[in-house]
Amino acid sequence: MTGIPADTTEEALDRVMERAAEAAPVLAAMRPAERAALLRAAADALDSAAEELVPIAIEESSLPEPRCRGELGRTTFQLRFFADLVEQGGYLEASIDRADGKWGMGPRPDVRRMLVPIGPVAVFGASNFPFAFSTAGGDTASALAAGCPVVVKAHPGHPRLARATGEAVAAALAGGGAPEGAFAVVYGEETGRRAVLHPRTRAVGFTGSIPGGRALFDLASSRPDPIPFYGELGSVNPVFVTRAAMAARGPEILEGYAGSFTQGAGQFCTKPGVLLVPREADLGPLVADIEGRAAARLLNDRVAGGFAAGLDRLSARPGVQVLVRGADGGADGWTPSLLAADADALLADPEGLLEECFGPASLVVRYDDEARLPEIAGTLHGQLTSTVHGEESDEVAPALLAVLSEHAGRVLWNGWPTGVSVTHAMHHGGPYPASTSVLHTSVGSTAIRRFLRPVAYQSVPDPLLPEALRDANPLGIPRLVDGAPEK
Amino acid sequence: MTGIPADTTEEALDRVMERAAEAAPVLAAMRPAERAALLRAAADALDSAAEELVPIAIEESSLPEPRCRGELGRTTFQLRFFADLVEQGGYLEASIDRADGKWGMGPRPDVRRMLVPIGPVAVFGASNFPFAFSTAGGDTASALAAGCPVVVKAHPGHPRLARATGEAVAAALAGGGAPEGAFAVVYGEETGRRAVLHPRTRAVGFTGSIPGGRALFDLASSRPDPIPFYGELGSVNPVFVTRAAMAARGPEILEGYAGSFTQGAGQFCTKPGVLLVPREADLGPLVADIEGRAAARLLNDRVAGGFAAGLDRLSARPGVQVLVRGADGGADGWTPSLLAADADALLADPEGLLEECFGPASLVVRYDDEARLPEIAGTLHGQLTSTVHGEESDEVAPALLAVLSEHAGRVLWNGWPTGVSVTHAMHHGGPYPASTSVLHTSVGSTAIRRFLRPVAYQSVPDPLLPEALRDANPLGIPRLVDGAPEK
Repeated sequence: MTGIPADTTEEALDRVMERAAEAAPVLAAMRPAERAALLRAAADALDSAAEELVPIAIEESSLPEPRCRGELGRTTFQLRFFADLVEQGGYLEASIDRADGKWGMGPRPDVRRMLVPIGPVAVFGASNFPFAFSTAGGDTASALAAGCPVVVKAHPGHPRLARATGEAVAAALAGGGAPEGAFAVVYGEETGRRAVLHPRTRAVGFTGSIPGGRALFDLASSRPDPIPFYGELGSVNPVFVTRAAMAARGPEILEGYAGSFTQGAGQFCTKPGVLLVPREADLGPLVADIEGRAAARLLNDRVAGGFAAGLDRLSARPGVQVLVRGADGGADGWTPSLLAADADALLADPEGLLEECFGPASLVVRYDDEARLPEIAGTLHGQLTSTVHGEESDEVAPALLAVLSEHAGRVLWNGWPTGVSVTHAMHHGGPYPASTSVLHTSVGSTAIRRFLRPVAYQSVPDPLLPEALRDANPLGIPRLVDGAPEK
Repeated sequence: MTGIPADTTEEALDRVMERAAEAAPVLAAMRPAERAALLRAAADALDSAAEELVPIAIEESSLPEPRCRGELGRTTFQLRFFADLVEQGGYLEASIDRADGKWGMGPRPDVRRMLVPIGPVAVFGASNFPFAFSTAGGDTASALAAGCPVVVKAHPGHPRLARATGEAVAAALAGGGAPEGAFAVVYGEETGRRAVLHPRTRAVGFTGSIPGGRALFDLASSRPDPIPFYGELGSVNPVFVTRAAMAARGPEILEGYAGSFTQGAGQFCTKPGVLLVPREADLGPLVADIEGRAAARLLNDRVAGGFAAGLDRLSARPGVQVLVRGADGGADGWTPSLLAADADALLADPEGLLEECFGPASLVVRYDDEARLPEIAGTLHGQLTSTVHGEESDEVAPALLAVLSEHAGRVLWNGWPTGVSVTHAMHHGGPYPASTSVLHTSVGSTAIRRFLRPVAYQSVPDPLLPEALRDANPLGIPRLVDGAPEK
C-alpha cells in the first residue's frame, strides 16, 4: 500500500455509494454530541498522524513544510469548529409555529421546520490545499457535521496523501461509532464523473478549475434528478488602490501586493490577479522586489504547464507590457512575473486581461481618472474577493464598494484577499464563475447549509417529532417560536 | 387594452431587463421601512382592485368566486407578511466577527456578513393559482421583499388577469417611490425562454409542470453563467393510513380524503394522489361519496386535455381498477374519479402508478402488511408532502415518518396536504421532482432566501459599511456577534 492507488472500479464505487446510502439515516439519527465527537476524533487522529502525513504532502505537492504543517492545523481547527457548531445547534434553524386559529390568512396548523441532512455527498478536493480543501477539508468537515456520509474523490495531485488521510479519518470515525459507509475515498477521473451521476449521490462539493468544475456541474444538472453542485471555481480577485491611498502608503501597499500574489507561488484561488493603481504610482520598487524573489515549485506538472500557457496568453494581449518575466527554473520552479497595462486596454479587452492565471503572476493596471473605477469594476465577472485600498475620505469609495459587492463574495478594505479565515461570518463564494452556487460558501460556519435541506412537520405529536422540535427542547438549542427567538 | 396581450418582442424584453438591471441597485439601497411600504402599497392596491380583478380571474380560470376572493386575500396577506419580515430584519442574517488576535487558526480580521439582493428575478406564474402563485404571488412578494426587481412572465391561462394585476402593482410601486424597472409583466412562451437566458436575469422562480419546469431549468443551467432556478414542479403527495387509524376513524379519514383530492377540482400541487389503506377498509361509503360529487370545470382546455390523458394512462396500468370513472361533462367540467390497486401492483410499477395526474382523480392502494409501509415509502420520488394518518401508539409510525422525511418537504400527521399556510416555519418544496432546488421553499418566510446572496465585508470602516453591519446597529435588527446573538 505504498504506491499510487489504482482507479476505483465502477463496481467498487457502486458498493461505496450503496454503503453511504445505508449509513445516511444512521448518521442523521445520531445526536449532536455524538456527531461532534466524531469530528473531534477525526481531528485528533490527523494531529496524531502529522509526522506521517506532512512528508507525503510535501513530496506530492512541493509545498514547503511550514505551509503543510500550518494547513494541517487549519484542517483540524476546522473539524473542531464544526463540532462546536453542531453542539450549539443553531445551524438546524429549528422554527416552531404553533397552531393559531386567528392567523391572518385563515387558521393555521402547528408547523415545525428544521434542517435535515441531504444524504451522501461527493467531495472533490483541490490541488492547492492538500489538507484544508481536500480529503478531510472544509467540504468533508461541513458535510459530516451536517450528518451526511462523504465520498471523497481524491485529487490526482496527491493520491497517496488522500489515502493516508482517508485511512486516519475512517479509523477515527469507526472508533467513534460511525456507521460503515460514513466516509470513503475513491480514485480516478472517470470515477469522479460516475460519482456525480450516481443515483445515491445527493450533493457535490468541488474546489478547482473553471473548465473542470463546469464539466461536473453540467453532469450534475443533467441527471434525471438534478442535485446541488457546490463548485468553487476561478477568480482574479481585483484590488483597487485609490490615489490618496497610494500617496499615503504606496510602498507599503506595493510590498503587501507582492507578498500576497507570490505567496504559495500564487497558487491560491484568492490570489490578487489584478492591481489597479493611479498612473503616477512609482512601480520601480515593486519591480525590484519581484525581480529579487526566489523561485518556487508549482504543485505539479499540470499546474506548471497551465501557468506557462496562461502567462504566455496574458503577455500577448494587446496593451500588456511585461515588467518582470519570471523564469522556469525546472526543478527549482518559477520566479514570479509582473505585467502591466493601461485601464483603457483593460476596458477594451476585459475577457483577455481578466482571465485567471493560476500561479506566480499578476497584472498592474494604471488608471488616470479615479472616478472611473466603479465603471471598471462594473466589467468584472463574479469574484471570490474584491479589495479596495483607500482612505475613508475618498469620494469614490462608497460607489466603488457598492459595485464590488454586486459581483464579489467578499469585499476587503486595506487588506489582502489571501489567507481566508474560518469564522462564523466568513463568506468564500460569489457569482459565477467564482462559484456555481452563488448562495453558498465553502468556508465558515454557513458552509454546513449546503448539505442540509428543510423539512416541515405539520401537526406531528410531540413524541414522534425529532428532538430538535419537541416542546421541551431537550437539545437546548436556539429556536424561533412564531417567528421570534424562543425564551 | 381589453383583448389578450400580444407576445412581448425580443427588443421589448431587452428594454424590460435593462431597466430591471438599472433598478436593482436602487431597490437594494432602499431602507427596510421603504421597501416594506412598497409591499404594503401593492397589497392595498390589489385589495382596492378586487372588484375589477376577481371577475377576470373567474372568467379566465373557471375557479369559483369564493375561491378567487380567498386567494386574493392570501395574496395580499403574503405581501404584508413579507413587509413585516423586511422590517424585522432577521432575514438579512447579519453576522459580525470582530478581529481576534487569539483566534484558534491564527489571528482573524474583522469580518461581517449579510445577505444582499441577487438582482433581477424572472417569475413564472402557475395556472392553478391566478393570484397567489402568479403575478403578485409568493415568488414576486419574496423577490421584491429581498430587494430584487421582478419580471413576471404571464401564464397563458390568465393573461388579462396578469396584465390587470401587473398594472395595479406597478402603479402602487411607482407611487411608493420604487424605481422604474422594479416590476414588469411580459408575455409569450418564447419570451419566457429568453428571460431565463437573458444576461440580466439573476434567478428564476417557477411553479408548474415537470416537463415545463425541467426545460427551463435546463436552460438556466446551460447559460454561460448558470443561475439559480427555483422550480416547484410535481408531486403525488402520498397519504398512509395505519390499520389502527382506519379502525378508529375510518369514515372520517375517507371523507377528509375525498374532500382534499376533489377540492379545487384536484388542481393543487398538494393534492393527495395516493391513499394507502389496510385491505379491510370499507371503501363503499367513499365510492358513494365520490359518485355523488358534482362536476367542476378545469382551469383550461390544456389542463383538461392533460388530465384526460393522465387518467386514461393511470387507469390502464396493470393492476389498477377503476372504482369511479368520472365523466367529462363539457362546459360543466369533470366529475371526480377514484381508482384502486394493491400494494404489490404499486411496488411492481411505482413509476406508472405514482405519476402525477393533475385534476380530480386519486388512487387508493390496499396493503396487507403494515410493517411494509416504510418499504413502500422508500420507493417514492421527491414529494412536496407526505402524510400519515395514525395513532401515536402505532409501532410503524417512527420508521414511517423517518422514511417520509427523507423524500418529502413537509410531513403531516392526521391532516391533509391541501391548503398550505403561509407561516415562518412552512416549507413548500422537496427533493426533485417536487422542486428543482431541494434547499428552498416557495412558501413561508424563508422563501425570501432564494433571492439573496451573502457578502462578507472584511475590515471595512464603519461609515463605509452597509447600515445592517455598523457597530451601532442603526436598523435595530437581530445579529450574531462572534457566533452568538448580539445583546
